[in-house]
Amino acid sequence: MARRIRAVVAYDGTDFHGWQSQPSLPTIQGVIEGVLEQIDKQPVAVAGSGRTDAGVHALAQVAAFWLDNPIPAANLKKAMNRLLPASVRILSMDEAQPDFHPRFDAVAKTYEYRIWRAEVCPPFEYRYVHHHPYPLALTKMQEIACLLTGEHDFSAFAAADESDSEERTKVRTIFSSSIESVGDALIYRVRGSGFLKHMVRNLVGVLLEAGKGNFQPNDLTRTLVPGVTTKAGANTAPAKGLTLISVEYTPDKTGIENPSI
Amino acid sequence: MARRIRAVVAYDGTDFHGWQSQPSLPTIQGVIEGVLEQIDKQPVAVAGSGRTDAGVHALAQVAAFWLDNPIPAANLKKAMNRLLPASVRILSMDEAQPDFHPRFDAVAKTYEYRIWRAEVCPPFEYRYVHHHPYPLALTKMQEIACLLTGEHDFSAFAAADESDSEERTKVRTIFSSSIESVGDALIYRVRGSGFLKHMVRNLVGVLLEAGKGNFQPNDLTRTLVPGVTTKAGANTAPAKGLTLISVEYTPDKTGIENPSI
Repeated sequence: MARRIRAVVAYDGTDFHGWQSQPSLPTIQGVIEGVLEQIDKQPVAVAGSGRTDAGVHALAQVAAFWLDNPIPAANLKKAMNRLLPASVRILSMDEAQPDFHPRFDAVAKTYEYRIWRAEVCPPFEYRYVHHHPYPLALTKMQEIACLLTGEHDFSAFAAADESDSEERTKVRTIFSSSIESVGDALIYRVRGSGFLKHMVRNLVGVLLEAGKGNFQPNDLTRTLVPGVTTKAGANTAPAKGLTLISVEYTPDKTGIENPSI
Repeated sequence: MARRIRAVVAYDGTDFHGWQSQPSLPTIQGVIEGVLEQIDKQPVAVAGSGRTDAGVHALAQVAAFWLDNPIPAANLKKAMNRLLPASVRILSMDEAQPDFHPRFDAVAKTYEYRIWRAEVCPPFEYRYVHHHPYPLALTKMQEIACLLTGEHDFSAFAAADESDSEERTKVRTIFSSSIESVGDALIYRVRGSGFLKHMVRNLVGVLLEAGKGNFQPNDLTRTLVPGVTTKAGANTAPAKGLTLISVEYTPDKTGIENPSI
């Protein structure tokens, strides 16, 4: 009888065309499904908590799938980590309730975006940061980051091609949103009920414009209004600075603890 | 008139066949010389403080070269960082005394070797660590690390093909040598007057054997003796865990400050 398995997955997105399987392109979902097919001797469909764009990283993406093979979860984790590329790692693997769905059951997600400020971007960081060695007014950015908190219609921050029929409403709740200076980096951390396609990268685009003095709190107030779908005006920040930090579920649903990060 | 220039260089060695130029293989020295030839419109030979093996990284390698082009050092640094791959960065660039040689004038070098202990090696670490999720007795390793300090004949720790005629003596002085547990990693840090080819990786090989109970202080005493050239017995630890941290010079010679790390 098939078992429902949930996995927490970390990946360096640099060499992948995003999470979602695509024919003849390397994707995270694709390599995981490929390894599971080797183990289960049949195609295995893997569901994720959401798609991440090409180049976006994850410390703890959550995925689930059905498996016929009776291999214990701990052994399955080891077998998968032997077969997967070193840039994709299964951090944990457990039996899940049959109705567990990593996307529909998620109650919160946290993303982090890193902007490297120093003149030279170290060779050990460039895959994971957006290098921006030009003046930015941090207090202006903090002001905007703070105003993003709450329930808003984020249509103006969605990707132009956002047209998923399951996602008619563009209203999302942001529980926390803050940017701080840590060493040579600015780190933007945002936790919310869910995020539209490109939304975090578009929020960072606006934060960068705010830091340059080109986007004011009034501009944001005019933007976070139902019906406003014109793009907020800034560029979508590069994918490589973005990392999915954690996905949260209610304890009754999954028992997954928020991984320590 | 040609100027002597010194540069501090950081690199991720993963995608390179080591420091030293080789025909038709990517090397650090090779890409730097290639960029300088573009700028100076003639071949430019770059000297390093020493060769690093294929896969070894550097936080602060020191290099020097002669340049005819009168471009200010700060602009040269910017131009080179635009032309070099993101995995090689010029951290600083200054005019040097004409007789400055990054190898012969070096008075100390510091290397760090990282051993990842946790069952799963994170996708953001695997390029920079040796993954060894098996039991190791840290106190046994610390004992050997400590005994390495001092002036010894390290013939037993040299590469089998070490035959550089300029390097007849295999006597080196280790100023400090210690290993500690930091999070999920063991970090071995060694500072010495100089190191033979493969020496740090062979020292780490012996530390790993000590951690497994296969190498005792007595074995080291028998090994660090003039005339003993049989290899100390352990495997050479993988290159990817090794990073050149800094190279030191006397202030009168170069004025290079030890970079803050």
